[in-house]
Amino acid sequence: MRPSGRAPDQLRPIRITRDFTKHAEGSVLVEFGDTKVICTASVEERVPGFLKGKGQGWVTAEYGMLPRATHTRSAREAARGSQSGRTQEIQRLIGRSLRAVVDLAALGERTITIDCDVIQADGGTRTASITGSFVALADAVRKLLARKALKKNPLHGQVASVSVGIYRGVPVLDLDYAEDSEAETDMNVVMNEAGAFVEVQGTAEGHAFRMEELEAMLALARQGITELAEKQREALGLRH
Amino acid sequence: MRPSGRAPDQLRPIRITRDFTKHAEGSVLVEFGDTKVICTASVEERVPGFLKGKGQGWVTAEYGMLPRATHTRSAREAARGSQSGRTQEIQRLIGRSLRAVVDLAALGERTITIDCDVIQADGGTRTASITGSFVALADAVRKLLARKALKKNPLHGQVASVSVGIYRGVPVLDLDYAEDSEAETDMNVVMNEAGAFVEVQGTAEGHAFRMEELEAMLALARQGITELAEKQREALGLRH
Amino acid sequence: MRPSGRAPDQLRPIRITRDFTKHAEGSVLVEFGDTKVICTASVEERVPGFLKGKGQGWVTAEYGMLPRATHTRSAREAARGSQSGRTQEIQRLIGRSLRAVVDLAALGERTITIDCDVIQADGGTRTASITGSFVALADAVRKLLARKALKKNPLHGQVASVSVGIYRGVPVLDLDYAEDSEAETDMNVVMNEAGAFVEVQGTAEGHAFRMEELEAMLALARQGITELAEKQREALGLRH
Amino acid sequence: MRPSGRAPDQLRPIRITRDFTKHAEGSVLVEFGDTKVICTASVEERVPGFLKGKGQGWVTAEYGMLPRATHTRSAREAARGSQSGRTQEIQRLIGRSLRAVVDLAALGERTITIDCDVIQADGGTRTASITGSFVALADAVRKLLARKALKKNPLHGQVASVSVGIYRGVPVLDLDYAEDSEAETDMNVVMNEAGAFVEVQGTAEGHAFRMEELEAMLALARQGITELAEKQREALGLRH
Amino acid sequence: MRPSGRAPDQLRPIRITRDFTKHAEGSVLVEFGDTKVICTASVEERVPGFLKGKGQGWVTAEYGMLPRATHTRSAREAARGSQSGRTQEIQRLIGRSLRAVVDLAALGERTITIDCDVIQADGGTRTASITGSFVALADAVRKLLARKALKKNPLHGQVASVSVGIYRGVPVLDLDYAEDSEAETDMNVVMNEAGAFVEVQGTAEGHAFRMEELEAMLALARQGITELAEKQREALGLRH
Amino acid sequence: MRPSGRAPDQLRPIRITRDFTKHAEGSVLVEFGDTKVICTASVEERVPGFLKGKGQGWVTAEYGMLPRATHTRSAREAARGSQSGRTQEIQRLIGRSLRAVVDLAALGERTITIDCDVIQADGGTRTASITGSFVALADAVRKLLARKALKKNPLHGQVASVSVGIYRGVPVLDLDYAEDSEAETDMNVVMNEAGAFVEVQGTAEGHAFRMEELEAMLALARQGITELAEKQREALGLRH
Repeated sequence: MRPSGRAPDQLRPIRITRDFTKHAEGSVLVEFGDTKVICTASVEERVPGFLKGKGQGWVTAEYGMLPRATHTRSAREAARGSQSGRTQEIQRLIGRSLRAVVDLAALGERTITIDCDVIQADGGTRTASITGSFVALADAVRKLLARKALKKNPLHGQVASVSVGIYRGVPVLDLDYAEDSEAETDMNVVMNEAGAFVEVQGTAEGHAFRMEELEAMLALARQGITELAEKQREALGLRH
Repeated sequence: MRPSGRAPDQLRPIRITRDFTKHAEGSVLVEFGDTKVICTASVEERVPGFLKGKGQGWVTAEYGMLPRATHTRSAREAARGSQSGRTQEIQRLIGRSLRAVVDLAALGERTITIDCDVIQADGGTRTASITGSFVALADAVRKLLARKALKKNPLHGQVASVSVGIYRGVPVLDLDYAEDSEAETDMNVVMNEAGAFVEVQGTAEGHAFRMEELEAMLALARQGITELAEKQREALGLRH
Repeated sequence: MRPSGRAPDQLRPIRITRDFTKHAEGSVLVEFGDTKVICTASVEERVPGFLKGKGQGWVTAEYGMLPRATHTRSAREAARGSQSGRTQEIQRLIGRSLRAVVDLAALGERTITIDCDVIQADGGTRTASITGSFVALADAVRKLLARKALKKNPLHGQVASVSVGIYRGVPVLDLDYAEDSEAETDMNVVMNEAGAFVEVQGTAEGHAFRMEELEAMLALARQGITELAEKQREALGLRH
Repeated sequence: MRPSGRAPDQLRPIRITRDFTKHAEGSVLVEFGDTKVICTASVEERVPGFLKGKGQGWVTAEYGMLPRATHTRSAREAARGSQSGRTQEIQRLIGRSLRAVVDLAALGERTITIDCDVIQADGGTRTASITGSFVALADAVRKLLARKALKKNPLHGQVASVSVGIYRGVPVLDLDYAEDSEAETDMNVVMNEAGAFVEVQGTAEGHAFRMEELEAMLALARQGITELAEKQREALGLRH
Repeated sequence: MRPSGRAPDQLRPIRITRDFTKHAEGSVLVEFGDTKVICTASVEERVPGFLKGKGQGWVTAEYGMLPRATHTRSAREAARGSQSGRTQEIQRLIGRSLRAVVDLAALGERTITIDCDVIQADGGTRTASITGSFVALADAVRKLLARKALKKNPLHGQVASVSVGIYRGVPVLDLDYAEDSEAETDMNVVMNEAGAFVEVQGTAEGHAFRMEELEAMLALARQGITELAEKQREALGLRH
Repeated sequence: MRPSGRAPDQLRPIRITRDFTKHAEGSVLVEFGDTKVICTASVEERVPGFLKGKGQGWVTAEYGMLPRATHTRSAREAARGSQSGRTQEIQRLIGRSLRAVVDLAALGERTITIDCDVIQADGGTRTASITGSFVALADAVRKLLARKALKKNPLHGQVASVSVGIYRGVPVLDLDYAEDSEAETDMNVVMNEAGAFVEVQGTAEGHAFRMEELEAMLALARQGITELAEKQREALGLRH
């Protein structure tokens, strides 16, 4: 039995609210149950140094948590003077995941920066961030298309993400904090809308896991991501 | 005529939402029109080094802006590796203002840290932060009183803040961004519920201002803060 | 009775020594009693990034204290690796105050950087810094005018500063350390030579202060700044 | 055809040289073809703050590359003042992987720090680091057992790692730089000696990958890690 | 002919002013011609971590330059966030030189920190710093002896320093900036009052120098340091 | 008697291995007994800012130690976020020493960066670094000459370095760690192949040293450097 009473293959209630703040080209509040992340997409007409003059754009992400998004307050990274290894790992993952569905040449020499700021954490902040960021990115791209800054849509797919794990011996989908802190194995899966893998990151927390456990988790992930991709399309007013 | 159509002595719509996030001892979303700040109060059973063994507590504040809280994206301070001078100035102001109504000895050897994170900025983020933080602080103190960690209430007053300025020659209350970026003078005033000054910070942006202008601005501030203090009491379910 | 035996409206002995060091375009040792600050003005033929190509100049300030300028040694900021919030607050204040009397367009595309380094501290280091910096700035401008680098004088006024406060219930002018550390209210006032406000920063240290206290302090400040502006003119060899 | 002429399931020549430097409790030079990493294990009789008084030990890792380990010189992280996100990601991975086979309670209140320093890079530096680090760790543990500092062996298994990927449409084992920079998919797998997963990290570089591709890569990884675990036992003078 | 008109073996005018600032246990303004350095000695009743519980004290030094001590303004190290390699080299040299004449055990578990802050630079700032610091240190020790905090004098000698070099083919003593920037060889020598070497640091700026040049420079240094040691004794009111 | 059994004027076994790693333009493993340093030379077609447009090149050096190159592990500088004063001092010394034999104008607008990374330390890491770096630099220059990037050889001499000291009253050559940690005086000498001084740095660790001790040490240094220069020529396949 899961602490939340959910079935093993059941997502938490998912909500994707567009236009959450008013300045950004894309602004989304994504909620996976009690995990709440603001994802904004900012368009800037310049590219990082390593891309200058290459005729292509860039999509990158930054991630942060409000100090009291968690059970106990954690030090503010700006005050401490550096981003933790965990933060950097997550923001690199978000950026890679989004770039997997972007044609950077079609984007032109501009950068879209995604900011994922967790205002309340209850497990799965990186998977919620990826899922919400895609919607913010799509909104920013729409604005660029609407004002004719882009000739063609640089997005060639959708990307969403969910966590899976082994909790008390049972493979489960979309772990909340109560499960996550106790899980034997924790895996974050990023897939496109066709169910192909963009990223797989699995870690044995307790015992090492076997191939059949891996396969069971990946099957759950595929099912969850199919639902999340549908939620993204609903939020964006799209139908298959 | 003000860009927002408000009367010179009119506040923006003020909203104070308690229990905005679930983990903090106090959590408030404060809105001064389109300026939105999450203020959380976190209680920790330790004091900073300079207070160890002195039998008193501490109240301190940290301030941040989400990178895209503003019209154009500003660099994330955690990524840049330091807090700007502006950020430090603001968080020092918030901390001092709150301590003005706290009996630190009555708080005991614990620290209450206020985090003010601006999720949308439209002028007056520091005054909104102070006004909302007081409510978050009051909630945290109530929790400490409820679980008998405190014998007496360490709060001996209310504190709230508003900006005033000279906009196109006219003294106005609670400047939004459109006014603020054009104002000749900008002043932030912090007062207690009795209308006495806790902090006054006025800066001539254009021409230096005269004593009668200062007095007109301070009168507006007093009126605005009286209203804000009433909003705080409403939010906290208190009546005069 | 003040610890120094001064009357409530009496400044400490003020000394302004020009050409204190030999390399800078302006170099002033300013003394407010035992508070001693070296203020230098350095002219550089470039502007910060945000002003490039805008046809105007910039005036900015940096502030520091020698580690043993104070009663007990404080850590060297260069060794610690960052400037404190207090330092940044002060240097921002000095820069804003000076810019209030400079026509930046008339300055042309150059930067004047004011360095205020406190070699001995006894209260009021920021007000002494502003007062001395104006003289260093005036000297640097004279050199630019003398070598025809400027067509017209970009200075359109004088700026000076003093602290006022409530000490043992009495409003007093120009607090020294003994008073400052015990004052109920501490206020720094920056004015131009016409007695108009450039900056007002007041903080209740003990109880919140009332309007009549504020007015008494501002009257003292105006009187003190009038005297300081006269000292500046004397130092510069000017007469009204 | 692979650039190196290897069969798809063929490891590069693997060499594990123990006692490579003289001061460390464990010191290994591990070579995966032209990738060469010095792995040292250092024992210290203290634990990090978060473990104090908990009666258990800690195993952690740090990773670095000599600036000219690569084709073009990269900036020295010590000179730049921070470790890159990539570096932090790798050293966190190495630490987690090693801890998966250590009984931290049996280790007692001490820390073993693994330093992985790449002196020549040709792809797969993180997998070589993990594989070599296990041998360095085993040597350090042997020294602790030999001098009776430990009652029982805290190692309850072996851990090794290899990369797999899809190169020109074919799943291949142990990618070198020429393959890695061109691969469509890149996956790092960490397993114990029984072939169970400790960590799986796969990234689609080009197109998203399908379940059957994932399975083909994991099968190659298992075979490679079986060989690497055998190399580790040989190096340590162990036989099954 | 030297730019200053001095004879090759002639020091610049040397001035050592004690009690230059009022808070420090020792405070000296040392002048080697136009090079002016404030040296303060601060006594603190604690030792750095590596000396805790060892029953001995420590003497250390920090060095800084006011940004406009030099011909052109250099960036403030506190603002830049780190001390340059040159600064660290100099402060390490000053500390080592002073410790050469201190019996650290006799000092007891306390630290004397010397701060050398250059307010005007004209060559030889490190040698002036060492020479002035010794006097500041002696004053701090006298205060400790006077208040019976020390039983015996921990100073067992004097230390002073001067630069020598080859300028236009001629060995010269105590180079000023005009000479230093053009010298073929630059050497800083630290000696005790008996003319024995505490530190020798020589660098060929142009051509490598020969043994006879080295000997000529060292003979000049010995003569100069003999004079400087006499100046120190005069300043301290001592006679041989 | 020296701990190693060497005669007072005897170097440790010296080995210079070229082409130690494969990517760098020059790559040398230099061994002074148990002290082992990897020295690489990297050529980049750009110069630092202060040399832009001056038609000359630059040679600079960076130095690091693997954390466990020493008896006990020292903190990784990249993790700590800064290079120590000692590291900076050493890398500045290496750079200056090499530049003493390079015609920077003949090098053209390019930079050669020398990286010295100590993989095992047993005293004399800076002198081994200088000696090995010269060979790496010579190899990089040869490659530039071979591909006609340079018209003439910018190297106009050889540079090598050794330590000397007073150990138990006896002047000795090339101190190892056992001697160094106990020596009364420690001196690093850098000379060219003609026996002229490039750099001399001597420090009294115990008592101050006298002129005749200095001369005895310098004579030993000259003899040792003559041998080292011969070793460099052998390694480079040169004969006098």
